[in-house]
Amino acid sequence: MNAGVSQSSERLVRVPLGDRSYDILIGPGLIARAGREIAARVKGRRAAIITDEHVAPLYLEALTESLASEGISVVSLTLPAGEKTKSFDHLITVCDKILEARIERNDPVIALGGGVIGDLTGFAAGIVRRGVRFVQVPTSLLSQVDSSVGGKTGINSRHGKNLIGVFYQPDLVLADTGVLDTLSEREFRAGYAEVAKYGLIDKSDFFAWLETNWKDVFAGGGSRIEAIAASCQAKSDVVAADERENGQRALLNLGHTFGHALEAATGYDSRRLVHGEGVAIGMVLAHDFSARMNLASPDDARRVERHLKAVGLPTSMADIPGGLPPAEVLMESIAQDKKVKSGKLTFILTHGIGRSFVADDVPASEVLSFLREKQQT
Amino acid sequence: MNAGVSQSSERLVRVPLGDRSYDILIGPGLIARAGREIAARVKGRRAAIITDEHVAPLYLEALTESLASEGISVVSLTLPAGEKTKSFDHLITVCDKILEARIERNDPVIALGGGVIGDLTGFAAGIVRRGVRFVQVPTSLLSQVDSSVGGKTGINSRHGKNLIGVFYQPDLVLADTGVLDTLSEREFRAGYAEVAKYGLIDKSDFFAWLETNWKDVFAGGGSRIEAIAASCQAKSDVVAADERENGQRALLNLGHTFGHALEAATGYDSRRLVHGEGVAIGMVLAHDFSARMNLASPDDARRVERHLKAVGLPTSMADIPGGLPPAEVLMESIAQDKKVKSGKLTFILTHGIGRSFVADDVPASEVLSFLREKQQT
Repeated sequence: MNAGVSQSSERLVRVPLGDRSYDILIGPGLIARAGREIAARVKGRRAAIITDEHVAPLYLEALTESLASEGISVVSLTLPAGEKTKSFDHLITVCDKILEARIERNDPVIALGGGVIGDLTGFAAGIVRRGVRFVQVPTSLLSQVDSSVGGKTGINSRHGKNLIGVFYQPDLVLADTGVLDTLSEREFRAGYAEVAKYGLIDKSDFFAWLETNWKDVFAGGGSRIEAIAASCQAKSDVVAADERENGQRALLNLGHTFGHALEAATGYDSRRLVHGEGVAIGMVLAHDFSARMNLASPDDARRVERHLKAVGLPTSMADIPGGLPPAEVLMESIAQDKKVKSGKLTFILTHGIGRSFVADDVPASEVLSFLREKQQT
Repeated sequence: MNAGVSQSSERLVRVPLGDRSYDILIGPGLIARAGREIAARVKGRRAAIITDEHVAPLYLEALTESLASEGISVVSLTLPAGEKTKSFDHLITVCDKILEARIERNDPVIALGGGVIGDLTGFAAGIVRRGVRFVQVPTSLLSQVDSSVGGKTGINSRHGKNLIGVFYQPDLVLADTGVLDTLSEREFRAGYAEVAKYGLIDKSDFFAWLETNWKDVFAGGGSRIEAIAASCQAKSDVVAADERENGQRALLNLGHTFGHALEAATGYDSRRLVHGEGVAIGMVLAHDFSARMNLASPDDARRVERHLKAVGLPTSMADIPGGLPPAEVLMESIAQDKKVKSGKLTFILTHGIGRSFVADDVPASEVLSFLREKQQT
């Protein structure tokens, strides 16, 4: 593991998926250079930028100018910020905007924003004309290291999160690390949970490196770029091996089954819990549950908890303000989660740090007892 | 060309698409046998059947019983019949029903109906949980020979037909030819336009066979099954070579650019014009326009017109009841059609019967003049 050693100012990670392969560029100043990078990879000369009301004032003008300087004309749409934007209503609005702009198959639709904008826009790009070109310009740490890479797109349903969508790979990801300086501390930390996740899945060296170097990652500069590149590389490896989640890709859901249930339980209210925070708590729960099942040492669960707590992330259900519904309600949400096959619960469990695995026959009764105990402590 | 020679009562056409390959079974009695055929190919034991109010009274019970006899539990949804059902509103209803039924990735969603139900249901199957199993049980000639094969799914937008959708291949197509006896003469004829299309694209022998044997095809029996199988084979060949329409698959749109414009001009009112009728007129127009551009002999256009007229299909814009908007409005609709690249019009033109080709730089001005002339005669 040489994370942190390289101090170059820009990194490139290639996602190798045959004729759907693409580059992830990581470094400062990429929005200003977006026009050139997009024009080099996409034929069309009309673009639609989809963004949200938080991001638009900061970067929409710079991105539009960069595209214009390459002769690409731009139409843009600014949506409300927040998880509730991942809805059918907003999907229809985005599709209509893309069609109104007469975007054709070779023209790019560009997601400028965090995971919500990326997931929604990618879904729209995947279904308008049965697929147009798609570029991700992720503006949060979470979306740079996770949602912008790998082609999962979608919206939420009243039955659960991300239940409607398509696999649709982008043609390019531009992770401009300069934009991360404008994130709130809380938002950066939430993204960091996904960075730590890659170490916990199968890279114990990377997790140990993060335990030592996390302050540098938070401070910015080379260590931050290195941590993002290592995360994108880790995700790219998993996606290249199992694009459509028939097996090992499910490892990326470490902490997510519990996390999604907690997000649902808080009504996707970002004042109470954001996705990365749910994942942080979910990862501690996954390690604790694995220990309870005698699969892993409780010491590993404590080590995970200690690190996430050190960076300021919530690590237990009690850390969520406003209280939670009973364990039974959380279970109901887990059962409807999409990682369920033929009635049995599929969970990502672990034998220890960096040794996670897909368990596809976890008894629901054990999970329920575990949640009850956790809620009482 | 040996169409019409074989008199076996059932045919199988395999669509070869790697791990997305699937069988099309063609013959009488397949709905009664559906449970067995589906259970042999799909692991899940819950099914959702999506159908419409015309088809449900005829076949829903038989299909449900056939599934139940294999231990597959069924939830069904009956939608209004007609092109307007291919909308975002109905898509949402179908997705909700599938999720309510707790359909998982290995469970089948079954389209029981014509092209509208197949396109809408296939789209929903392709996006719920980013893709569940999908079975087509087409109940019209049109859907048996065209829309149920090849994986194009989608809905209409106010900007045009089929502008939102995905490529999503079924796991099985059951074309029960017994159901065709309940079709109206008009509906059967409309489907026949797509049968004739395969001859016009690149199988002049098949077109000649149809000129001789069309009465037998309309009467039912072996010739009908043979014509359907030949059509499915022709479509399978094209789809296998170019699944995502990067090139030659566009040939399947012969007659469709004009046809879609006529459908839009009549407000998708099936009392005035159904899809296959639009295609019939569109194919005659495509041959006439090719002759006008000195690409083909006017004799071929007359031969196409003669055959389609013989079977009772409309062959000119004047055959559409209720009048049409001016040529300029039809052109606007053509320009928004999805077969447009970088502003130039892409049309399927022909050098003669069985010699169609993709022309990707047809001058809009020529098309407009042609439409004006046609409207004046």
